[in-house]
Amino acid sequence: MNQFTKSTEDLFTANSKVDLKKEKQNRNMKFQPPRGTKDFLAEEMVLREYILNNVKNIFEKYGFEPLDTPAFEKFELLATKSGEDVIKQIFQFKDKGGRDLGLRFDLTVPMARVVASNPQLLKPYKRYAIGPAWRYEEPQSGRMRQFYQADIDICGSNSMGADVECIACAVDCFKSLGFKEFAVRINNRKILDGIMELVGVKKERNLDIFRIIDKMDKIGEDGVRKELEKAAFTEKQIEKLFGLISKKGNFIEMLNEGKKILKGIKIAEDGIKELEEIYSFSKCYGISKFVALDFSLARGLDYYTGPIFELVEETEKLIGTLAAGGRYDNLIEQFGGRPTPATGISLGIERMFQLMKERKILELEKTKVKVFVANVDERIKIKTIEIAQQLREKGINCQTDLMNRNLTKQLEYADNLGIPFVVIVGEKEIKKKKLKLKDMKKKTEKEMNIQNILRILK
Amino acid sequence: MNQFTKSTEDLFTANSKVDLKKEKQNRNMKFQPPRGTKDFLAEEMVLREYILNNVKNIFEKYGFEPLDTPAFEKFELLATKSGEDVIKQIFQFKDKGGRDLGLRFDLTVPMARVVASNPQLLKPYKRYAIGPAWRYEEPQSGRMRQFYQADIDICGSNSMGADVECIACAVDCFKSLGFKEFAVRINNRKILDGIMELVGVKKERNLDIFRIIDKMDKIGEDGVRKELEKAAFTEKQIEKLFGLISKKGNFIEMLNEGKKILKGIKIAEDGIKELEEIYSFSKCYGISKFVALDFSLARGLDYYTGPIFELVEETEKLIGTLAAGGRYDNLIEQFGGRPTPATGISLGIERMFQLMKERKILELEKTKVKVFVANVDERIKIKTIEIAQQLREKGINCQTDLMNRNLTKQLEYADNLGIPFVVIVGEKEIKKKKLKLKDMKKKTEKEMNIQNILRILK
Repeated sequence: MNQFTKSTEDLFTANSKVDLKKEKQNRNMKFQPPRGTKDFLAEEMVLREYILNNVKNIFEKYGFEPLDTPAFEKFELLATKSGEDVIKQIFQFKDKGGRDLGLRFDLTVPMARVVASNPQLLKPYKRYAIGPAWRYEEPQSGRMRQFYQADIDICGSNSMGADVECIACAVDCFKSLGFKEFAVRINNRKILDGIMELVGVKKERNLDIFRIIDKMDKIGEDGVRKELEKAAFTEKQIEKLFGLISKKGNFIEMLNEGKKILKGIKIAEDGIKELEEIYSFSKCYGISKFVALDFSLARGLDYYTGPIFELVEETEKLIGTLAAGGRYDNLIEQFGGRPTPATGISLGIERMFQLMKERKILELEKTKVKVFVANVDERIKIKTIEIAQQLREKGINCQTDLMNRNLTKQLEYADNLGIPFVVIVGEKEIKKKKLKLKDMKKKTEKEMNIQNILRILK
Repeated sequence: MNQFTKSTEDLFTANSKVDLKKEKQNRNMKFQPPRGTKDFLAEEMVLREYILNNVKNIFEKYGFEPLDTPAFEKFELLATKSGEDVIKQIFQFKDKGGRDLGLRFDLTVPMARVVASNPQLLKPYKRYAIGPAWRYEEPQSGRMRQFYQADIDICGSNSMGADVECIACAVDCFKSLGFKEFAVRINNRKILDGIMELVGVKKERNLDIFRIIDKMDKIGEDGVRKELEKAAFTEKQIEKLFGLISKKGNFIEMLNEGKKILKGIKIAEDGIKELEEIYSFSKCYGISKFVALDFSLARGLDYYTGPIFELVEETEKLIGTLAAGGRYDNLIEQFGGRPTPATGISLGIERMFQLMKERKILELEKTKVKVFVANVDERIKIKTIEIAQQLREKGINCQTDLMNRNLTKQLEYADNLGIPFVVIVGEKEIKKKKLKLKDMKKKTEKEMNIQNILRILK
């Protein structure tokens, strides 16, 4: 009996590309990923993993350590200090025990819970987390309902050095991935509080107003003006507000401008002092040329208390935010922990991925498989598997035929998958103890022993 | 103005360990992770990442390629061919658009969907996926409601070589992690179908019975007998069934036994032929010493159609399943794809993690930070940050003081965190262009220039 099942027909190479397209339409695809989500196949995964590995290594260089938390949290936790716009976007559900849960919408809230409930953690606690978060938003290019974030946070330090370290680490990440034209927009919630005081807004309305200002990039200045009117701002207030937040200039000029305008407003003066320290630290960390002070920056989340920052691309047409974060000195205490100042930044992996894919910044292989070990005919198959096992033992990624295909079809498969090398095994080759190594790109082949093959493939 | 914020009090080193314990109790911990889930802090993450990296590398050696799918799927998809026991455990919810969704309970169903809806994928499609899945089960040691799985699957091949390749790859993973005493229990759904025919069970009841038999390890033989009685099995049927499934012996003996007993039952004969091929292939792949034929192995999921397998630890007291899988030749078609034979195996990361942690198989560092760059006093802080940035540029993971602590406290922090080296920076050292490198384990220190420090830390 032949020990290998015969394939009656090679179902999977018969169809041409045109047929495939038709088939995809005709089948009407019974099951697709849920709306707003996406599958990532091998070719995209090569790029995604490149990004994630890079980011992870740089996070570790800055002394951040990994943390993994569950995908879902108690709904009550997620709803604490997050702001109604975000709360509306939570995927909410009950478990079979009736507990109110929700998928996490960011990585900061779970981390703050961990710090609150683990007072034994040494401070500063520097952690990174890389993983998915979920928001029910209208899907569009680069914005999905499941999206990966890569976060770093420093808990326990009230030094502006901590904020700048997070920013510097993020800058390093983008540099390492080939991003060049970017800037770090910085503001301070304390300055915004001061501006609100100056404009004459009641303190309890500040967060609502910040959320409106935060929409500037999305709905433009006119849109923001309209929403402020709806929120019962007077025209005079709106003019005064825009007079302040639309100022532009270099960091030092803007700081001095702010000092003049906000003189005597205690909270704003504290905020300006913090930004002065941020600027000094940014020189230490070698990132002062990237930082810009922007009084219109507000950020949407409720939990920020001090400096806030955004890493944006500065190309001709504004692409938007690559990373964002800020200081949240009260959140950990609000979750039941000790008073613990904290700051952090979150890198938007989906946008990085999108941009790097479009710009073809990297030339990556289509596959992670290095070599296909092909058999000349069925009788040699056992030997082929043994050779593949030898290569694997030496750390080489390889495949062998699992379809009982003839040599031509095996080569076709390897070529279509983008596998760069093929080793050809026949009885003749085994006798001579030399195998054929075929370079699929250069279209060359050469006979050599297994040691030499290993040397080339390594 | 001093550019560095002064810390008024070092809140985080004041408390002794006893106080911390009290505090943890007293605070009554407002927020904990949801029931059945767990946070993984740095020390555990070092081990988890070690496991995941190992597994990933070995998957890639066998030519599997990565796939990432969303955490949730349409509920209808999850409920197709999964079996009622599993369906009951799905975290089910609606999105804001009213769509019925559920968190994935394994990584096989999403992958089968991807293959069904992407007919352009080259066959064999060999993919791996590493990530969490969710089941609402009663939590116990090593079984949580969120758990990581690491899966490999081969789609498009009906060769038993594909099944054995998956098993061999899993065996390699466990070997690489230091597991020694394990066996691969193998059976075939076709043989079980044949046994049901022989015992006189109506075909449509087979899956119910398999789910009962699958509980053998959990509820024991008596438990299974009782459930079979409840399912209206006659005593005679139960005796006959146990007479067949409780046989023990080596692979070849068991095969021959099976051939005798099940002679003339077509489906069972097909199953036995497949297992013969599996045994032959297991010799090629060098894993024949691990495989054992066990007619009592059933597996709980409905979608299996051929060989099924479990990798179990064989220690004195049975620990349970480390990995499990099988062939599911109809699932992809049932999801709307072309007829596509498929097989795969899933490694239970949580159990591996649990066992490796308990047995202390590895001696891993407590932290990923390699060096702490300490400053002798405030005035030298800028220089310290600059040195740290230099080290980072060379790929060395490091921290500097962010708490405005004095040198003693900085050293204490580094020591408590388990950082193996400290570089001490003072004005004297800067003038001499030599820094002090302190080995925290050996308790030695030596002055040297930055190049030598780099050489040692690399």
